[in-house]
Amino acid sequence: MASHIIDFATLGNNFSTPEMRAVWDEKNRLLKHIEIEVALAKAEGELGVIPADAAQKIAERADPEKFDLEIIAQEIARLKHSFMATINALQSQAGDAGEFVHYGPTTQDIVDTGAVLQLKEAFAIIERDAKLVANELKIQARKYQYTPMVGRTHGMQALPTTFGFKLAVWLDEFVRHLERLKEIKERVLVGNINGAICTYASFGEKGPEVEKRTLDLLGLNTPNIGWQSARDRFSEYASVIALISGTLGKIGNEFYNLMRTEINEVEEPFSAGKIGSSTMPQKRNPAMLEGLASLTSPLFKSVALIHESMRVEHERDAMSWRAEWIALPEINMYIAAQLSIALAVLRDMKVNQKQMLKNLEMQNGLLLSEKVMFELGTRLGKQTAHHIVYDCAMAAFEQERAFLDVLMETPELAKNFKREELAEWLKPENYLGSAPQKVDVVINYAEKSGLL
Amino acid sequence: MASHIIDFATLGNNFSTPEMRAVWDEKNRLLKHIEIEVALAKAEGELGVIPADAAQKIAERADPEKFDLEIIAQEIARLKHSFMATINALQSQAGDAGEFVHYGPTTQDIVDTGAVLQLKEAFAIIERDAKLVANELKIQARKYQYTPMVGRTHGMQALPTTFGFKLAVWLDEFVRHLERLKEIKERVLVGNINGAICTYASFGEKGPEVEKRTLDLLGLNTPNIGWQSARDRFSEYASVIALISGTLGKIGNEFYNLMRTEINEVEEPFSAGKIGSSTMPQKRNPAMLEGLASLTSPLFKSVALIHESMRVEHERDAMSWRAEWIALPEINMYIAAQLSIALAVLRDMKVNQKQMLKNLEMQNGLLLSEKVMFELGTRLGKQTAHHIVYDCAMAAFEQERAFLDVLMETPELAKNFKREELAEWLKPENYLGSAPQKVDVVINYAEKSGLL
Amino acid sequence: MASHIIDFATLGNNFSTPEMRAVWDEKNRLLKHIEIEVALAKAEGELGVIPADAAQKIAERADPEKFDLEIIAQEIARLKHSFMATINALQSQAGDAGEFVHYGPTTQDIVDTGAVLQLKEAFAIIERDAKLVANELKIQARKYQYTPMVGRTHGMQALPTTFGFKLAVWLDEFVRHLERLKEIKERVLVGNINGAICTYASFGEKGPEVEKRTLDLLGLNTPNIGWQSARDRFSEYASVIALISGTLGKIGNEFYNLMRTEINEVEEPFSAGKIGSSTMPQKRNPAMLEGLASLTSPLFKSVALIHESMRVEHERDAMSWRAEWIALPEINMYIAAQLSIALAVLRDMKVNQKQMLKNLEMQNGLLLSEKVMFELGTRLGKQTAHHIVYDCAMAAFEQERAFLDVLMETPELAKNFKREELAEWLKPENYLGSAPQKVDVVINYAEKSGLL
Amino acid sequence: MASHIIDFATLGNNFSTPEMRAVWDEKNRLLKHIEIEVALAKAEGELGVIPADAAQKIAERADPEKFDLEIIAQEIARLKHSFMATINALQSQAGDAGEFVHYGPTTQDIVDTGAVLQLKEAFAIIERDAKLVANELKIQARKYQYTPMVGRTHGMQALPTTFGFKLAVWLDEFVRHLERLKEIKERVLVGNINGAICTYASFGEKGPEVEKRTLDLLGLNTPNIGWQSARDRFSEYASVIALISGTLGKIGNEFYNLMRTEINEVEEPFSAGKIGSSTMPQKRNPAMLEGLASLTSPLFKSVALIHESMRVEHERDAMSWRAEWIALPEINMYIAAQLSIALAVLRDMKVNQKQMLKNLEMQNGLLLSEKVMFELGTRLGKQTAHHIVYDCAMAAFEQERAFLDVLMETPELAKNFKREELAEWLKPENYLGSAPQKVDVVINYAEKSGLL
Repeated sequence: MASHIIDFATLGNNFSTPEMRAVWDEKNRLLKHIEIEVALAKAEGELGVIPADAAQKIAERADPEKFDLEIIAQEIARLKHSFMATINALQSQAGDAGEFVHYGPTTQDIVDTGAVLQLKEAFAIIERDAKLVANELKIQARKYQYTPMVGRTHGMQALPTTFGFKLAVWLDEFVRHLERLKEIKERVLVGNINGAICTYASFGEKGPEVEKRTLDLLGLNTPNIGWQSARDRFSEYASVIALISGTLGKIGNEFYNLMRTEINEVEEPFSAGKIGSSTMPQKRNPAMLEGLASLTSPLFKSVALIHESMRVEHERDAMSWRAEWIALPEINMYIAAQLSIALAVLRDMKVNQKQMLKNLEMQNGLLLSEKVMFELGTRLGKQTAHHIVYDCAMAAFEQERAFLDVLMETPELAKNFKREELAEWLKPENYLGSAPQKVDVVINYAEKSGLL
Repeated sequence: MASHIIDFATLGNNFSTPEMRAVWDEKNRLLKHIEIEVALAKAEGELGVIPADAAQKIAERADPEKFDLEIIAQEIARLKHSFMATINALQSQAGDAGEFVHYGPTTQDIVDTGAVLQLKEAFAIIERDAKLVANELKIQARKYQYTPMVGRTHGMQALPTTFGFKLAVWLDEFVRHLERLKEIKERVLVGNINGAICTYASFGEKGPEVEKRTLDLLGLNTPNIGWQSARDRFSEYASVIALISGTLGKIGNEFYNLMRTEINEVEEPFSAGKIGSSTMPQKRNPAMLEGLASLTSPLFKSVALIHESMRVEHERDAMSWRAEWIALPEINMYIAAQLSIALAVLRDMKVNQKQMLKNLEMQNGLLLSEKVMFELGTRLGKQTAHHIVYDCAMAAFEQERAFLDVLMETPELAKNFKREELAEWLKPENYLGSAPQKVDVVINYAEKSGLL
Repeated sequence: MASHIIDFATLGNNFSTPEMRAVWDEKNRLLKHIEIEVALAKAEGELGVIPADAAQKIAERADPEKFDLEIIAQEIARLKHSFMATINALQSQAGDAGEFVHYGPTTQDIVDTGAVLQLKEAFAIIERDAKLVANELKIQARKYQYTPMVGRTHGMQALPTTFGFKLAVWLDEFVRHLERLKEIKERVLVGNINGAICTYASFGEKGPEVEKRTLDLLGLNTPNIGWQSARDRFSEYASVIALISGTLGKIGNEFYNLMRTEINEVEEPFSAGKIGSSTMPQKRNPAMLEGLASLTSPLFKSVALIHESMRVEHERDAMSWRAEWIALPEINMYIAAQLSIALAVLRDMKVNQKQMLKNLEMQNGLLLSEKVMFELGTRLGKQTAHHIVYDCAMAAFEQERAFLDVLMETPELAKNFKREELAEWLKPENYLGSAPQKVDVVINYAEKSGLL
Repeated sequence: MASHIIDFATLGNNFSTPEMRAVWDEKNRLLKHIEIEVALAKAEGELGVIPADAAQKIAERADPEKFDLEIIAQEIARLKHSFMATINALQSQAGDAGEFVHYGPTTQDIVDTGAVLQLKEAFAIIERDAKLVANELKIQARKYQYTPMVGRTHGMQALPTTFGFKLAVWLDEFVRHLERLKEIKERVLVGNINGAICTYASFGEKGPEVEKRTLDLLGLNTPNIGWQSARDRFSEYASVIALISGTLGKIGNEFYNLMRTEINEVEEPFSAGKIGSSTMPQKRNPAMLEGLASLTSPLFKSVALIHESMRVEHERDAMSWRAEWIALPEINMYIAAQLSIALAVLRDMKVNQKQMLKNLEMQNGLLLSEKVMFELGTRLGKQTAHHIVYDCAMAAFEQERAFLDVLMETPELAKNFKREELAEWLKPENYLGSAPQKVDVVINYAEKSGLL
């Protein structure tokens, strides 16, 4: 019976995905430890650090299925050590080859390298899903490239833009995220097998070779020097995930706001039978969007926590690990849920183009005051135009009148321009600037990047 | 199979306690929800909001044992609502009284009040254990009231103090923590039953009475006004726990440092068979202390997270809850582990008084330079004395000589004082100041406070 | 020329207030240090720890006006000590009494007690302004007690409420904040004068008396035991400010959202000439509200930082202070700005009641689906009614039809109720529940509390 | 008179450097704004967006020296807009060309691009200093490549290592940091000139060309699409600085611990006259190291704050900027101080090799228990040897006896090995493993990287 919500049967899928939970669950963690001990034994057998037949026996007999987590848990409590019980169980399985189990490394070697193996699986999931999100953003940006909508700054209507432009900004951001993931990958997925304080003393002279061979077998990179006391790789990974989560949280928040009853431009996927409220039958809530938006905060906290694990004391301490043991899985859990929700939302959201048009008109022309200012500015100078248009805009707002009417009452405008001319300026579709072109630029860049 | 370490069979007890996990596990959460629905039905029956016999039937038939979390989980996925499945199950159990289940409230009423019921259980555990820690600090402060040891500032030996004094500072801090817990208790343990947006509209005119009676039945306080959009109570609770955790983390860190091989003044409880390292047989590691010290950081992050939940939008949003659903249990989990470890450490730590004395002597007299300065200052003025004693101290340090010898070569000292006199000043036990008396002050205050 | 924005001539007032900056500026910090040294000298003179005439001379001659911060800064760089330069300057002013300046304490005594003296000034400002905000909330809650508006959950229209109710929730929260400030005040405003490691050794036997008398002269409380290594008081203070800031940030965010072009229910104070944008003349931006909302995040970060200062090593270290030296002023700076903005907003905001009514109508009846459900439920049972009303609501939403029309086409409703009856249910003003009454409850509580 | 400690005359240099403060001070911020407006006018003149002679006039007459910050501050207060006052002043300087000042962009274009220009200066400082630190680490790692010292895990002595190895781990970390800085540089130093909501509408069709030309003139990269609502670059930069700061804080903490009176292996640079304490003349405190260690926490908080600025609403909001305006300078301030202190420490620290040897001996042989286990293990198997050596080690520890003596009383050892043989195993210099070789590996890698 789980007590952390990530593992709740009822609510856990709002906070992670089954696939990502499986990467970080207790069983997989143990499997990785055994996988490493076996790879180490093989490497040591090949290099003559332990007898070849002992290595073979260890590899053949190690059987994760026969491990009983409850029994191991009891041993841990007795020995007050987090890993001896696993070693003892492996040793017992290996029979007379047992003396050569865990030969040379320290517990931390296994635990750290195990975490990196889990991270490798998580990395693959996240890279896959980030690409899927990027692709979906590309598809939707193209689809809505010319769809006009209100652009807002400070929460207030500002100028017209297109929905595709908004999506293209996010696509561009996701391409950067994919670049980042690519740049850090080889630097992050690095194992560590070098003994109690990274000097290989217990392995004899072949230490560095043992490490290299073991990590090759495991599909991990080999470090220049042991990193038990240099945890920057986990923090680097976490930082990049933070950036991705920041974008996803922003998307969630943006759609949440666009779905407001009063704005109503986008709606998250709705399926028949979906209940918004146990007491208000009319409610169609942005439940997925709230989930998407809300997971960034806990993820950021886990990132801040893992940053603190960089402060290792001396050659190693157990205080920094604990932060990692908590934070590294959490970060992956939350981002997996966010990517998964984002994908579902982007694929099946309802885009209410009719309402987008309606919102463009709701201010009765004020939305285009900048356009008026620049047109007027060509005659009077921009700053002067700003003052005139400002006065008209404030009046239209205060008196709740059509902007065009107020403008036409202004001598500087009335004498220089016809009403039809002004009316043309006030059409949102005429003032989209280079928004649609920029969508092309971003999509082209994304496609040429080879990252999607 | 848990994926969050709090729920690991093998390692979970380093991050929480079985008792505290039981408070926050999925089962207890559900039980609270049912308990609230039953109490609500009873209250509504009493007040005539629903038929009395329907209320009775609901109360009699609600049977948490028959709830199947897996089935509820499937329903949640189908309805895309976190609570309707529970209502439906309860309704089904109640038969024809089912229509009066969940009569008037909104989901959030049940979920929030449920969280407070869980919090009440958690509060009791923490208050109990905080008192136990305070009591143990009192016992140990008394025991070591006169035990001299080195006081250190900036990591460097500074002046003599007593071990009891160090403990008394913490005791005083814990008394403040108990005061804080007392002050916030009634303000925090407040339920909320007032409908979709706290206006009681769905309950009819008796809304406020229904809320009061329901919360009375549940043993919770009634708010002045609904707090669905005012989450300060959880943050207040979290803040006080942060303070407690800050003290506990400090204690863990302090003993960790005092246990260093080179200092060796305190050792955490050691039991035969305890393994420090899988590769270094000699290691006796401060495993408990590292655990104690290391849980403050994740707890602080959860506190920072719950603070953010104060930013509710409008009458309610689901973004702030999610932060609470994650953070509130975490905070309680971690503090429970810290209190439990602290208690075990304080009860059975080894205090190495012999080494404490040895460390007092290791600087060969330099530790008492302040004493020399003040004695000399009575003749020459304090600032002048600071300059002279500073020069002697730097020389003794650089040349690795006995401070007394260097002092005796200084004319201002040699001509005014005898060697025996100076030697007397350099005895640590003569310069404890009011340290032992302050232990009395603190213990007296603690005892009179009525909080322990 | 300041490099931190708090001290910018141009923008600093968006991040703090002149009054609060004056509390924490470098000059006031120095003044406090001198005030403490003088009070200490007086106390020591009275108690015979130093000669009475030396005390008098120190008190008479200490002249903060003659301190040159630039010269002190140079001395600090030379001595690599943050306070000796001040002592030297004071000593020099005191002439032959100079040897009795700073007699017994350690630097930390002065610096910590100085910080508390500054904090006392800051506390008074915050308490004053928090009361003013609470009073304004009371006035406005009363004013708008019966003003109907849309209540929203999950960003979506939910049910009718009143604007006064919304304000009353905040008032209730502010009353709790005032309670908290009151509870912590005496515990927080505590000085510390007890020597290098809090044992008073350098003061001789009268140490505790010296401390008590000095702190009495300074108007601060005396601790049971020195707190150089127990920094919980600052964190406690910071935590309470965090709660206040959480409420203020929420208010800023709430009004920011209510001011959105599409909602338009509240507008922050507007003065003629106020410019929203350098390029969009029509913009009336929620600049104050964004300021109000945005300062909570940096304040929370400073609170999280000061929490970490609780982890002092041994009898004292300089790592925890630095966090305090940064965070404690920041926390006070930001909250002062928030309180000041909130007050200005609450006093002069425009409340657009016409638009509030319009928004209540915009969903064409759907807003009252709960009411329909409960009325229908009295005949058919609530759960059954939920299903029927849910179907009607979804249809009305999808088809963009009047809810009343859809309802009337539903047999269960058509056969049992008349159209007029249903129409009555759909009037927002008939479904405010106990909202206005709760405003009374809160205001009465606030007034009786004696806190405003 | 500054109120934030970064700008204190007396203490500011503990929190930043004069050079970095100059980058972020109010004057330089204004200079950047003017520089951008001038570059924009030039670009627009070249491209025919504004008259060429107007562009020339603006460029010639813009005179930052004549700007009066106090007057601008008053205008800001009056207009309630942060930038119009600057535009007005520039316009006034430009005479009849003033109408073409700030032609097309929005305030945010100027402010964001200005921040990036400042960031470019800061980036150069940090890159320069990070290289210097890396080089110093290389020099010292080489120097102490073979210097034996105690390696510690969990704060306890573990095994022998070399001081150069410890430094090489940090060097390897710094090479990674330099890689990261290189990777992000082009992605981060990107300007933004594209109008109110990034659509270039106000620039007419040449918008994208205007942006490109302006940014070329300023020496910044041009984005694919406007990033007013995509702030990931600042967070990415901050994340990399966080990693650097994590390493620096760790170094500070490590040396702080190695400088402890009881360990005494390293001492920070000491200069004659340096005062440790105002009351304890003997104190030589790790003041620089505490500074170095302590700045990581506030920097992390600023990083966490800037992460939150990624959550922009719609096309832009002022809430995310404010976080950046606070956090971005802070991050640069603190890291500049850390790099500067680290450099000073690494260059002139005292390394006490004599004490390092003494500490290697202090456990009377226990330090080498792993070596004994592996040697014994070649006969008895490693696990069996672990049990035997564990018992010996526990006995030696409890009875405070020489490890060698206890070992020789153990039959399995006594019958198989001679005392001299065992004594040889217990020599630290014989069990350094590949530590010195790894120093070569890291230095070679660093040199070949071309990054130093």
